[in-house]
Amino acid sequence: MPIVLPHHDGSALHAPDSVTLGGTVRLRIRIPRSWGTASRVWIRSVQDGEPRYDAALSLGEADGWEWWEAGILAANPVARYRFLLEAGGRYWSLNAKGLFSRDVADSADFRLTSFAPAPDWLHRATMYQIFPDRFARSTQADGHPTPDWAIGCGWDTPVVGAGPETPVQFYGGDLPGIMEKLDHIQDLGVDVIYLTPFFPARSNHRYDASTFDAVDPLLGGDQALVDLVEAAHARGIRVMGDLTANHSGDAHEWFVKALADPRSEEAGYYYFSPDHSDYESWWGVPSLPKLKWSSDALRRRFVLDDDSVVARWLKPPFNLDGWRIDVGNMTGRLGSVDLNHDVARLIAGRVREINPDAALLAESTSDAAPDFSGEHWQGAMTYSNFTRPLWSWLAKDAPHVNFFGTPLAGPNRIDADDFLATHLDLASGFSWDVRNQNMNALNTHDTARAATVMIDGGQELGAVLMFTLPGVPVVFAGDEFGFEGFNGEDSRTPMPWTGPETASGQAQREEPARVVKDLRAGYSALSRLRREEPALTEGGLRWIHAEGDVLVFIRETTESSVLVAVARSGAQAVLDGTVLSGPQLEALRGAPDFVTGELTAELAPGGVLLSTEGSAAGVWTLPGTAFPTIRTGHDLD
Amino acid sequence: MPIVLPHHDGSALHAPDSVTLGGTVRLRIRIPRSWGTASRVWIRSVQDGEPRYDAALSLGEADGWEWWEAGILAANPVARYRFLLEAGGRYWSLNAKGLFSRDVADSADFRLTSFAPAPDWLHRATMYQIFPDRFARSTQADGHPTPDWAIGCGWDTPVVGAGPETPVQFYGGDLPGIMEKLDHIQDLGVDVIYLTPFFPARSNHRYDASTFDAVDPLLGGDQALVDLVEAAHARGIRVMGDLTANHSGDAHEWFVKALADPRSEEAGYYYFSPDHSDYESWWGVPSLPKLKWSSDALRRRFVLDDDSVVARWLKPPFNLDGWRIDVGNMTGRLGSVDLNHDVARLIAGRVREINPDAALLAESTSDAAPDFSGEHWQGAMTYSNFTRPLWSWLAKDAPHVNFFGTPLAGPNRIDADDFLATHLDLASGFSWDVRNQNMNALNTHDTARAATVMIDGGQELGAVLMFTLPGVPVVFAGDEFGFEGFNGEDSRTPMPWTGPETASGQAQREEPARVVKDLRAGYSALSRLRREEPALTEGGLRWIHAEGDVLVFIRETTESSVLVAVARSGAQAVLDGTVLSGPQLEALRGAPDFVTGELTAELAPGGVLLSTEGSAAGVWTLPGTAFPTIRTGHDLD
Repeated sequence: MPIVLPHHDGSALHAPDSVTLGGTVRLRIRIPRSWGTASRVWIRSVQDGEPRYDAALSLGEADGWEWWEAGILAANPVARYRFLLEAGGRYWSLNAKGLFSRDVADSADFRLTSFAPAPDWLHRATMYQIFPDRFARSTQADGHPTPDWAIGCGWDTPVVGAGPETPVQFYGGDLPGIMEKLDHIQDLGVDVIYLTPFFPARSNHRYDASTFDAVDPLLGGDQALVDLVEAAHARGIRVMGDLTANHSGDAHEWFVKALADPRSEEAGYYYFSPDHSDYESWWGVPSLPKLKWSSDALRRRFVLDDDSVVARWLKPPFNLDGWRIDVGNMTGRLGSVDLNHDVARLIAGRVREINPDAALLAESTSDAAPDFSGEHWQGAMTYSNFTRPLWSWLAKDAPHVNFFGTPLAGPNRIDADDFLATHLDLASGFSWDVRNQNMNALNTHDTARAATVMIDGGQELGAVLMFTLPGVPVVFAGDEFGFEGFNGEDSRTPMPWTGPETASGQAQREEPARVVKDLRAGYSALSRLRREEPALTEGGLRWIHAEGDVLVFIRETTESSVLVAVARSGAQAVLDGTVLSGPQLEALRGAPDFVTGELTAELAPGGVLLSTEGSAAGVWTLPGTAFPTIRTGHDLD
Repeated sequence: MPIVLPHHDGSALHAPDSVTLGGTVRLRIRIPRSWGTASRVWIRSVQDGEPRYDAALSLGEADGWEWWEAGILAANPVARYRFLLEAGGRYWSLNAKGLFSRDVADSADFRLTSFAPAPDWLHRATMYQIFPDRFARSTQADGHPTPDWAIGCGWDTPVVGAGPETPVQFYGGDLPGIMEKLDHIQDLGVDVIYLTPFFPARSNHRYDASTFDAVDPLLGGDQALVDLVEAAHARGIRVMGDLTANHSGDAHEWFVKALADPRSEEAGYYYFSPDHSDYESWWGVPSLPKLKWSSDALRRRFVLDDDSVVARWLKPPFNLDGWRIDVGNMTGRLGSVDLNHDVARLIAGRVREINPDAALLAESTSDAAPDFSGEHWQGAMTYSNFTRPLWSWLAKDAPHVNFFGTPLAGPNRIDADDFLATHLDLASGFSWDVRNQNMNALNTHDTARAATVMIDGGQELGAVLMFTLPGVPVVFAGDEFGFEGFNGEDSRTPMPWTGPETASGQAQREEPARVVKDLRAGYSALSRLRREEPALTEGGLRWIHAEGDVLVFIRETTESSVLVAVARSGAQAVLDGTVLSGPQLEALRGAPDFVTGELTAELAPGGVLLSTEGSAAGVWTLPGTAFPTIRTGHDLD
């Protein structure tokens, strides 16, 4: 891959901040002189289903780049477009997957949308995921009885990752416990807590709610949530909840009524067989009966009513800052009926109505882009374009790792070019906004831990990418202590509050610590970097190099840029004449000049450098001179 | 590209002929021993939005291939799936784009559907496109006055491809003229005539209908259509019409009423501005007012009524065999409203109701796959996956060629690997059925002619590909005489019936012939080959080689296979140790053995070989021993 290629992305360097349906969108592309000179440039957009071509005009050249601009009509809510360049006697297509000198499918066209925007904080957020049963247990939890479905566990009882006891091991973490650890959370620099479900249920994961109208008393009840959100807000930390719109638990009050009385309103919320003896459920698991979104009554009760499930927790006194919707990809889908987008639109409209500053994210474990236009879900909790290729690039031999039921042993080990190809294959279908609002996780409560999947030091390299690529970084509680886990259930290790590494202000006990590696400082530094460097949240993304063991890209605004280079163990790659390897990247820290082809950039001191034996990740902030302020005011219409 | 790779496609070798919603679909993959041995194989399908993995079992080995089979649940109307192979210490994904050793997007998953099937004849059809004004003029046309909008032209008047007179040059071809040439049409071996519009209009192309209720009297009126269809049917030739569901002409009786009376029912068929002074139209062209499909009255009149536009021409006495819908991609789309699939479903349901043996195709000039699931339109008249990459691979320097408003000069010249990449990029989103029902044209009334775009002899090479790749070959009248044309309008040259190459039985006159090259025998041979070789219409498609100047693939059933090799001028490619070039391909004709890696096949004599200086295309039929009959009866569930 040549280092410098014609470039466009949806960031402010090349596109407006917002798009109005029916309005003109002015878009820019820049072409490096070192690549060649375009004789003509157009934007090809699709309007009402038909391709259209708008000629661009050159804005002139600055620092080796020629900038071109054209306006396109945002005829439809999703404005899809790509650039056509005439250069070197042929034409080139530039889309979200890159530069091609042949025709390409529309699926990787760039996308900007005129949908109602997500809250502005979302794409700048750094998220901390908490699985309440395993995070922290307050003294008040000691008064709670072990529920009838559970196996009571001490905080140090080993987690059983796969077995009959897996869903019922009960550790008793609660919301007051989380409140006690807000110092720890704040020290990590995160600003959104995402709680997996807090509804009463008959499992430790609580995705089988028995009601949506109360916080589980075992977690401290409604008041504990009010207190937690208030305390978090006082620190500038938001709190999001987790809602199953696809199913309830079979102990849910709705389902109990529905099962008992085929003529009840609630019977219409589920898919019963004609004789009422059977019903549809998530993945055929009978404890998770599937909700039937063709029911208007369900729509009212779940979404539209004043005190609906979606509404009540976003309103005072609870004031949640948004929802993560569980199995968003399956919600409303069954057989020949697909109400998925309809339901998403319904929920999104209601959330916006209650609080336009609330976020709405949804899980989507496969290829998420087709369901995430930006019209409803604001971002995807997905794995396909970030987590999975990252696991593969940093894979160690981990045959026991399982990923969401994939029957394969641990991920394929791939080189950086395949990391980038996979990333682009699965990220290019998102609009620029959604891409920045997607959740990028190294791991979650549903996956193995990065530390188990990746080579030594891989988690740290991955964290650098998670904090510097577009998207919302998600730290799953325990990542900061290097937790391991061979699957999602095994990853739900109770936090090591009792060990010597206990967070400040907590009573120390004598039990052995579970801390594997203390990465708190690294995560804190990365979240600080992300907070302080606008290029990491507002900037464009330009890939510089992706081969073998080395990934290099740049995030950039008109004001500043950040160069990120990550080299995995054994790295050895020639980058335009400069050999990049782990140790050499390390040596580059503090080097006055870092010359790579067209890019000449001062390396400011103070960037983050995480390094382990043979691996290295560098993040360098570059002064604002790297890119010219874009000239505007040209009238090209 | 290695010659032999693990393979699957939707043909009978690997998939059932039909799919039942909610039923199990048994699918097979075959892995060549020369590539390696898989330790495990799964099918990954997406069910109700969620990936699922079904293990395959080995059926055993035959002729160097190991066959595996698994059943998946066809949970949804479109069953999407790919194969996962564990081999050589890693896993591989096989989807409709090929084999990858990394994760891939779902967009290129294989697709089988449980929608109502298209008529069985469609995927076996060979189509002949006629632009009535330019095809043939009967003596009865001599009695017709030149209409007020037209410039009357003699049959030999040069066509003006681009100018104010372009849409109004009137040559007076008519339906009785077509009837007189049925011998010519039948001699070409085609079995479907596709007529561009026959409604009265104010242009020579008639896409601006002034009524949908009559055949243009200038074409001979209703009775001429009845006669033509009857005569064609008597010869086993079907006749399809062309309908604008996106717009009417501004002289249309509906629009005239609508414009005159804002309170008329017809006013609701169009998009008028609030003060009725302006209206939406196709591409802003005021003579083509856009139809408003949110109007129930329009839906009844156009589709649902007994005597609706869609219905009446498919019924006696007209008995058309189907419709090609103009600008299918724009129909029902405007701004924030997208009723496209809804309208398509409506029309498709009605067509099926009237005559399940009628075809429904639609134009889609961009990336068609997302609109062609198979639920409604049965196939696409598209250019993106076949015509365009073919033009590019066979491109000569043709700077004046224009393609559907693309501002670029003639197509990029690309190599065979890019032909294949473009083809797969834009074909992999179709189900196997739809792919076989798509219209594959070298050129149409809307494009330049292949002979103008392509290298010398390129049209012939392209024709071989058109008749041998999946899809319905479309011969545009005049192709058989080597017609040229720099755009769609310029391509509409009157047929050369008056010259020395006049088809049999026609009166000869003294005017100079327009025949550039007589390709009738070649087209006849290709359509015969397609009719006689089931592998070309029922067989799978396996690419063997695509590099530089040479394309080689195989179509295959359990009974027989056809090997197709096409080498463009200057071809020189090493195919697994064998150098393939134009002359050498020629030499291969009659060679007893053609050894390519795993493939050892007898070359039967009698295959078609079209050859020009330095270029060559070969089609070899291979005896049925090339592939084993597939064992069935295994119970793998």
